[in-house]
Amino acid sequence: MDRDAILLTPGPLTTTLRTKLAMLKDWGSWDADFNAVTARVRERLLDVVHGRETHVVVPLQGSGTFSVEAAVATLVPRDGHVLVPDNGAYCKRAAKLTQMMGRRATVLPVAEDAPISAAAVEARLSADASITHVVLIHCETGTGVENPLAEVAAVCERLGKGLIVDAMSSFAALPIDARKVRFDALVAASGKCLEGVPGMGFVFIRQAVLDACAGNSQSLAMDLHDQHVYMGRTGQWRFTPPTHVVAALDAAIEQFVEEGGQPARLARYTDNCRALVEGMGKLGFKPFLKPEVQAPIIVTFHAPAHPAYDFRRFYAAAKARGFILYPGKLTQVETFRVGCIGAIGRNEMRQAVEAVADVMREMGIDSGAPAL
Amino acid sequence: MDRDAILLTPGPLTTTLRTKLAMLKDWGSWDADFNAVTARVRERLLDVVHGRETHVVVPLQGSGTFSVEAAVATLVPRDGHVLVPDNGAYCKRAAKLTQMMGRRATVLPVAEDAPISAAAVEARLSADASITHVVLIHCETGTGVENPLAEVAAVCERLGKGLIVDAMSSFAALPIDARKVRFDALVAASGKCLEGVPGMGFVFIRQAVLDACAGNSQSLAMDLHDQHVYMGRTGQWRFTPPTHVVAALDAAIEQFVEEGGQPARLARYTDNCRALVEGMGKLGFKPFLKPEVQAPIIVTFHAPAHPAYDFRRFYAAAKARGFILYPGKLTQVETFRVGCIGAIGRNEMRQAVEAVADVMREMGIDSGAPAL
Repeated sequence: MDRDAILLTPGPLTTTLRTKLAMLKDWGSWDADFNAVTARVRERLLDVVHGRETHVVVPLQGSGTFSVEAAVATLVPRDGHVLVPDNGAYCKRAAKLTQMMGRRATVLPVAEDAPISAAAVEARLSADASITHVVLIHCETGTGVENPLAEVAAVCERLGKGLIVDAMSSFAALPIDARKVRFDALVAASGKCLEGVPGMGFVFIRQAVLDACAGNSQSLAMDLHDQHVYMGRTGQWRFTPPTHVVAALDAAIEQFVEEGGQPARLARYTDNCRALVEGMGKLGFKPFLKPEVQAPIIVTFHAPAHPAYDFRRFYAAAKARGFILYPGKLTQVETFRVGCIGAIGRNEMRQAVEAVADVMREMGIDSGAPAL
Repeated sequence: MDRDAILLTPGPLTTTLRTKLAMLKDWGSWDADFNAVTARVRERLLDVVHGRETHVVVPLQGSGTFSVEAAVATLVPRDGHVLVPDNGAYCKRAAKLTQMMGRRATVLPVAEDAPISAAAVEARLSADASITHVVLIHCETGTGVENPLAEVAAVCERLGKGLIVDAMSSFAALPIDARKVRFDALVAASGKCLEGVPGMGFVFIRQAVLDACAGNSQSLAMDLHDQHVYMGRTGQWRFTPPTHVVAALDAAIEQFVEEGGQPARLARYTDNCRALVEGMGKLGFKPFLKPEVQAPIIVTFHAPAHPAYDFRRFYAAAKARGFILYPGKLTQVETFRVGCIGAIGRNEMRQAVEAVADVMREMGIDSGAPAL
């Protein structure tokens, strides 16, 4: 049967048919009708973080990483110095792109299975006055750990440091309130917890730092200040927008609002995560993270110790049953990941666990328990 | 009636329903099924320029401008020096993004209504040995003029200079044969003459220069060498691909092949252009360019001299009749533009001309003749 598989991945993820149907129209990118879509998307994005009074939001073509790079390029002066607390692959990527563009970056290594400590960030900032900005990954998709955004933001505010938050996989699911948490930039993308399709990111920029961003970027395409100024003047994107992706995001946000916004989405994902962890637990699988630091976005499981286990075979057998899993991203420990996000609920999570149980029977694996 | 308007624009443009329907599926970006789509798209793109023996093609997220910037960043060493012959807005943009990223760029100004002269390029290259690369816009969408790719390529080859071609609006319509014309990089995008939807670009890179590109880019996201190496090793994009856009491009290329490839597409666009220019000519409108330098992609018309003409009203009235026109991009002369590309034929062009005639009656404009 050619039925679409359920994507248990950190994005692209399963979207609703209504979201996909919004792509069955071609828009003129210069036309007022499309500008109205862009304007509506921007306003509603600001609502998600309660940021209308304090922030602007600038959409950008490309994947989420393009928007992270653009945020650093636009916010951090060329002689700036960025501190990147590192507890996973996306932290390392942020540090790498900062260094590549010629900005100084210092990495603060943290264990992969623990959240970043705000106290450790504070100690490092106090010890090195040359640091101008912190880049924080809110939910590190490499493991699924949630980092303490509010605490790190409070430290940055107290010490007068800029804060750039990569909220790629947390935005619209975990609570982020710009009225209570001060950030200079916060980055997310269309194809994550808003349940749009991939192809664009967006960056919230604090109005108070906006003017100082002019001329920082050494990239034309990624200059968010220029994109913002142009959009303000014309209502248009500077360069060809991914019109169908924008229209799908507009439809996805409409459904997000109808569902009850961020609290409702968090409740559904939390329920998905619980159903997944409980069900997998009964099969013997063990999550890599302790429950108290696990964000309900993506769960890293230890690979089973059973000698018959092989990720490629496991993946293919789950796919044959209609579920797309995700590989692990840790170098020291063998793991695999299962996403809890997308247009899916408890039913799909239970069916996924049933499929895994069936895969284990087929592979002759009597328990998902890891070696530890 | 809520019928979709016909987009007479340089892209995003009108696509077929079959192309849009390809977006009604969510793909796992790590999955082998999606990797197969990416691989098929890349192979067929190479076929369009007969480049399998000489070039690789690297897709990139974002608009076409992102790919132009990525091509310059990846191909030109940090101490390189780029010559940009300039007969329009896209030439100026290429020079600007080159300078912003810290590469030296020299602009060679040319009249906007004439093609770039290969002899002038040769003279400039001979006069300044420090120039390492030429960036040539094949079809300058600002006016619609076709620049002499083969002649400029021959000059670059003879003088040992690198050549980066922005073929955004010509690729898949105008003939480009990598077996006969030597280029180091050639850039195009999904939402142009291949008639896909916007959201990704791609860059053909000559295999002979590929290795020397390692480490040139100061942007992680735009490092085409890194994207190529990773894709070669894994079959995957480095960062989240715009999966739906890629699937739509795959479907669009399939239809491109079925139609008869580049010669058939050129024949249809040439016919569209002829129907447009003839029909508009009968209404008194005068193209900005001489026929011999007009590419059959987008036609710039002088604004009518009649005092009742106003572009905003003209645009709105044409839109009410189902046709989206495009504003001019010249600073000295008042013009508007009409695209000949997209999933449209002679019927649509004739209907567009009829709509313009009706708009003129409504606005009380008896002739489209310009002031000159």
